[in-house]
Amino acid sequence: MAVVVQNVARAAQAVIDRLAQAGVATIHEAQGRTGMLASYMRPIYAGARIAGSAVTISAPPGDNWMIHVAIEQLGRGDILVLAPTSPCDNGYFGDLLATSAMARGCRGLVIDAGVRDIRDLTAMGFPVWSRAVSAQGTMKETLGSVNVPIVCAGAAIEAGDVIVADDDGVCVVRRAEADAVLAAAEQRLAGEEVKRERLAAGELGLDIYAMRDRLAAKGLKYV
Amino acid sequence: MAVVVQNVARAAQAVIDRLAQAGVATIHEAQGRTGMLASYMRPIYAGARIAGSAVTISAPPGDNWMIHVAIEQLGRGDILVLAPTSPCDNGYFGDLLATSAMARGCRGLVIDAGVRDIRDLTAMGFPVWSRAVSAQGTMKETLGSVNVPIVCAGAAIEAGDVIVADDDGVCVVRRAEADAVLAAAEQRLAGEEVKRERLAAGELGLDIYAMRDRLAAKGLKYV
Amino acid sequence: MAVVVQNVARAAQAVIDRLAQAGVATIHEAQGRTGMLASYMRPIYAGARIAGSAVTISAPPGDNWMIHVAIEQLGRGDILVLAPTSPCDNGYFGDLLATSAMARGCRGLVIDAGVRDIRDLTAMGFPVWSRAVSAQGTMKETLGSVNVPIVCAGAAIEAGDVIVADDDGVCVVRRAEADAVLAAAEQRLAGEEVKRERLAAGELGLDIYAMRDRLAAKGLKYV
Amino acid sequence: MAVVVQNVARAAQAVIDRLAQAGVATIHEAQGRTGMLASYMRPIYAGARIAGSAVTISAPPGDNWMIHVAIEQLGRGDILVLAPTSPCDNGYFGDLLATSAMARGCRGLVIDAGVRDIRDLTAMGFPVWSRAVSAQGTMKETLGSVNVPIVCAGAAIEAGDVIVADDDGVCVVRRAEADAVLAAAEQRLAGEEVKRERLAAGELGLDIYAMRDRLAAKGLKYV
Amino acid sequence: MAVVVQNVARAAQAVIDRLAQAGVATIHEAQGRTGMLASYMRPIYAGARIAGSAVTISAPPGDNWMIHVAIEQLGRGDILVLAPTSPCDNGYFGDLLATSAMARGCRGLVIDAGVRDIRDLTAMGFPVWSRAVSAQGTMKETLGSVNVPIVCAGAAIEAGDVIVADDDGVCVVRRAEADAVLAAAEQRLAGEEVKRERLAAGELGLDIYAMRDRLAAKGLKYV
Amino acid sequence: MAVVVQNVARAAQAVIDRLAQAGVATIHEAQGRTGMLASYMRPIYAGARIAGSAVTISAPPGDNWMIHVAIEQLGRGDILVLAPTSPCDNGYFGDLLATSAMARGCRGLVIDAGVRDIRDLTAMGFPVWSRAVSAQGTMKETLGSVNVPIVCAGAAIEAGDVIVADDDGVCVVRRAEADAVLAAAEQRLAGEEVKRERLAAGELGLDIYAMRDRLAAKGLKYV
Repeated sequence: MAVVVQNVARAAQAVIDRLAQAGVATIHEAQGRTGMLASYMRPIYAGARIAGSAVTISAPPGDNWMIHVAIEQLGRGDILVLAPTSPCDNGYFGDLLATSAMARGCRGLVIDAGVRDIRDLTAMGFPVWSRAVSAQGTMKETLGSVNVPIVCAGAAIEAGDVIVADDDGVCVVRRAEADAVLAAAEQRLAGEEVKRERLAAGELGLDIYAMRDRLAAKGLKYV
Repeated sequence: MAVVVQNVARAAQAVIDRLAQAGVATIHEAQGRTGMLASYMRPIYAGARIAGSAVTISAPPGDNWMIHVAIEQLGRGDILVLAPTSPCDNGYFGDLLATSAMARGCRGLVIDAGVRDIRDLTAMGFPVWSRAVSAQGTMKETLGSVNVPIVCAGAAIEAGDVIVADDDGVCVVRRAEADAVLAAAEQRLAGEEVKRERLAAGELGLDIYAMRDRLAAKGLKYV
Repeated sequence: MAVVVQNVARAAQAVIDRLAQAGVATIHEAQGRTGMLASYMRPIYAGARIAGSAVTISAPPGDNWMIHVAIEQLGRGDILVLAPTSPCDNGYFGDLLATSAMARGCRGLVIDAGVRDIRDLTAMGFPVWSRAVSAQGTMKETLGSVNVPIVCAGAAIEAGDVIVADDDGVCVVRRAEADAVLAAAEQRLAGEEVKRERLAAGELGLDIYAMRDRLAAKGLKYV
Repeated sequence: MAVVVQNVARAAQAVIDRLAQAGVATIHEAQGRTGMLASYMRPIYAGARIAGSAVTISAPPGDNWMIHVAIEQLGRGDILVLAPTSPCDNGYFGDLLATSAMARGCRGLVIDAGVRDIRDLTAMGFPVWSRAVSAQGTMKETLGSVNVPIVCAGAAIEAGDVIVADDDGVCVVRRAEADAVLAAAEQRLAGEEVKRERLAAGELGLDIYAMRDRLAAKGLKYV
Repeated sequence: MAVVVQNVARAAQAVIDRLAQAGVATIHEAQGRTGMLASYMRPIYAGARIAGSAVTISAPPGDNWMIHVAIEQLGRGDILVLAPTSPCDNGYFGDLLATSAMARGCRGLVIDAGVRDIRDLTAMGFPVWSRAVSAQGTMKETLGSVNVPIVCAGAAIEAGDVIVADDDGVCVVRRAEADAVLAAAEQRLAGEEVKRERLAAGELGLDIYAMRDRLAAKGLKYV
Repeated sequence: MAVVVQNVARAAQAVIDRLAQAGVATIHEAQGRTGMLASYMRPIYAGARIAGSAVTISAPPGDNWMIHVAIEQLGRGDILVLAPTSPCDNGYFGDLLATSAMARGCRGLVIDAGVRDIRDLTAMGFPVWSRAVSAQGTMKETLGSVNVPIVCAGAAIEAGDVIVADDDGVCVVRRAEADAVLAAAEQRLAGEEVKRERLAAGELGLDIYAMRDRLAAKGLKYV
């Protein structure tokens, strides 16, 4: 049952890059408020904003062997996404693996477990979103799989799906929907710009969005 | 049962501003070690230190409609305080709402739920203390109430109470007690300055606070 | 049962300082993947990297009296390590205690509870690893013990053990093993440097560590 | 600041007893989906269903002294409700205190902390809803208050409020609203009986509640 | 995006019933240690052991409207499986919905949220595995979907997959794999019976499974 | 570093059995409110009350191989105590291992991880106190150690220490202190009986323990 799937299809790089620009919050709205990983996934440092195609890893608790296998499967611009088969906060990944991944063009790591060498990863500019920071080490004894469907932090992810991550967390976009989601996201961004100006000028959302009648109809009372 | 209470009494702005200067840890001590919100309430960026009058929001899980209503009730220098009616980590608040709130003079948000657009809020200098960061969006389908008494992160808060927040967390001061708490806090700060100098010079707390006899009486043994 | 143990043996200062340089992740590996405190122990600010001999404190929930007692037991270069006798997130420690501890040469605090005055501690450069940040205050009513064996964040620690802490968390090294662990850690660091260069040049861990045969033998399939 | 408030007003006993019969889920609905304590409050054994007037206790972490004080304030049919001033899972209450409380007519305990002597309490038929079960003991060193307003498991409770508790959890009813809530609850129960029969006969809620048109209007699609 | 998928394929009822007999722990082993939902999913009463085809529900936080829609989609022997779109512990389901579901032949509920009316559900013999027990009610304002793929308690589940649940938790078996998993499970059970007798007679697993050589080869030392 | 320590000293069986009778809450008080494991350690069924000498197991996350090794080290009346080297909720132990352990005279299991086959273990009368119930299986790939010092659920435990467990949780008594703790516990029990009768008769703890003067001296006010 331990397999490595090769030849994974990916979305167009230009689309992926523009998804990164749109940011997690906008993309998540643009695809109907879906795709968010759990809010316990936090970046190891502030300010990173990336997107890339998922190279997925299903790994046993306390065993990071499959990361070495996955790195060989990386294309330029990809993101490693690891889910343990049961909850584990061990530090699966550190600066040596990051060095190797960066040499292959990897843009970052999303891991529903722990990461370590935070100081080095920050200095290298290799962003990680994780459930935990932990120096507690791992083994290389048991197989897992690469590029199989996984559930990572509550979200179903397949190899080649687009991962977008920034300070707000991590969002997954189905590969086949990347173009449509990008279009919706960019339309949304344009609309927000107009609203931002009106709100900054002191207009109220109650008026811009014409909410007063609907609030009254639902029974809101001012006292 | 969905109401918006208007015309909320507030403490004097000068008192509020000096409470911000005193800081959360001192104020909490000055009012008898009471008033702290739960320690899971964390700032989205380090270094902010604010105080303001609470505009309270009771909101259903996954629904941020009432924030639009609450923004209209903001006075200059106020702080939005939101408690969901059941635990929810959704991102109720982002940069558009912050733009609107800032235009009304709002100093920050305290929310026992999630917040998003962290990068933008940080760039705007709009501080938030929250239970979670999450881009997971919300609806505008169900009413809640504004300026009613709420329980936020374990603390009972009424509209017009003074909220003080900094890197140590969030504290609430009853509106009617703001003057007395400020007096006690400033007296405390003055006393601390003297102690700080003595401690920095190497004197021990055991001697400054005359603890040795009481420790011996309780039975402490040196071996 | 409340005792203060004096005259605690310590490791050599030079060894301790080199352990700090090696860092938590390396030391933990060098001693067979043991010694880590739980991953919920987080630094109050990024970038600190310290080591020192443990002055241990066993304290009741909500009572920080024993910290004053422990400060008198500090030698230059020591680290305070506090475990409450039952889980408690109160802010046991703030800037006044830090002033006193620094005057005695203390390098930092590891506390399986809460800490406060984060802004001041950061400005002073006094690093703390804690389970929580909380301004919620404590009492001085009940005795505890100093320099007795404790369990802190899941790790058994004795007075005089070496504590190493950085952005990856906190690790304990038995005093008697400090020399051997340092030797193993430095050997490990030397080996890592070579691997880092090869990985940066694009060689794969699969080849450097000769993993391909063992993976195949265990049954990994490429599809 | 440590006070014991005496002469607390209570709701009529007959009303309280009928609230117990209605049960937590119904009462909570009858008062607009409000009043629930957090879902981590669990009964120590299944099947208990009680209501009574709250005698409230605000206690320091790890100190149960005030429970002795509160027992003197119990009237027949009352319920003890304890909130620690900061989170604590210590076993504040066991079989001796239960013996004393039962001798005063107390119907049970609601405690946002720990309880112990579970086997004995079960044998005695003294129900407890708690956050934790723990034999970890407490002190009698520090004062708290009795019959002051508290926040217990996220709900604001005043002395004399009616507490209703069963296998579904714990709910608070404001003393002044007890009559109205009871009326609404009993009306609700009557209506439910009719619905239960129709549903048991195989009719669908979609039809009984006439939901199909509203679902279609909101855009639900059958595929 | 709110859809109800009809005409879902199901596994053979006889296979499903034998999967229930095999039990969760055995089935999970038989399919390569996969398929378990998170361990926080607990039964509301001990002793239930069921299997059935999943009717899946994706519901907004705090809104149980879609359960009414899902009940119409139930076939005899099915199991309702609900995942909220963000974490929520509200009591989505109680005795009226259970009455309706039982009238349609439903065998139980698996819900990554809260349930209520525990006493009634237990008396009715309607088993539920849930993340929480809570009387906190829900709305009927917002659409979700029925019989779409969901992630429930960390496991990806599609409509028609077989759900097996007992005191050990909940496991999902892909519909297409049900026959093969059953065969492997029953073979496993047969083998376990033999081992149980040898172990009961005092033979050691070390000998039955011939572990001693492998332990020695890995370096285990007896001292 | 993987070792099995043989020839572990144990306390006298008669002392151990009387410790079981005294119960966890009393023993914990009798040894100065120390020795409790964390309150998340819960029994799989109510009513069990055992004591025995600890056979300790340090196991990697997700690997139960060492349990087979430990069973050979069991003496009649012993208790297995397992701590994973990092947090893990996998089901390390089920009915086959219990059959084997019971054949060796084992009285129960204390495990800071998961257990499975709950229905069978309950039917067999083999009690377990655990952090989780989970059918998620484990490997047999990596060594650990038996009868070495461990930290289990926050308590330091050595092989041969006495473990006492009942519905209130789990407590450890140092082997060398077993006689003294038993004496203190039995004295305590005798004293409690007298108090229980007085409290049942309606006397108040305030009077029995002569608390009124001390409360007044500390400043308690009746209003």
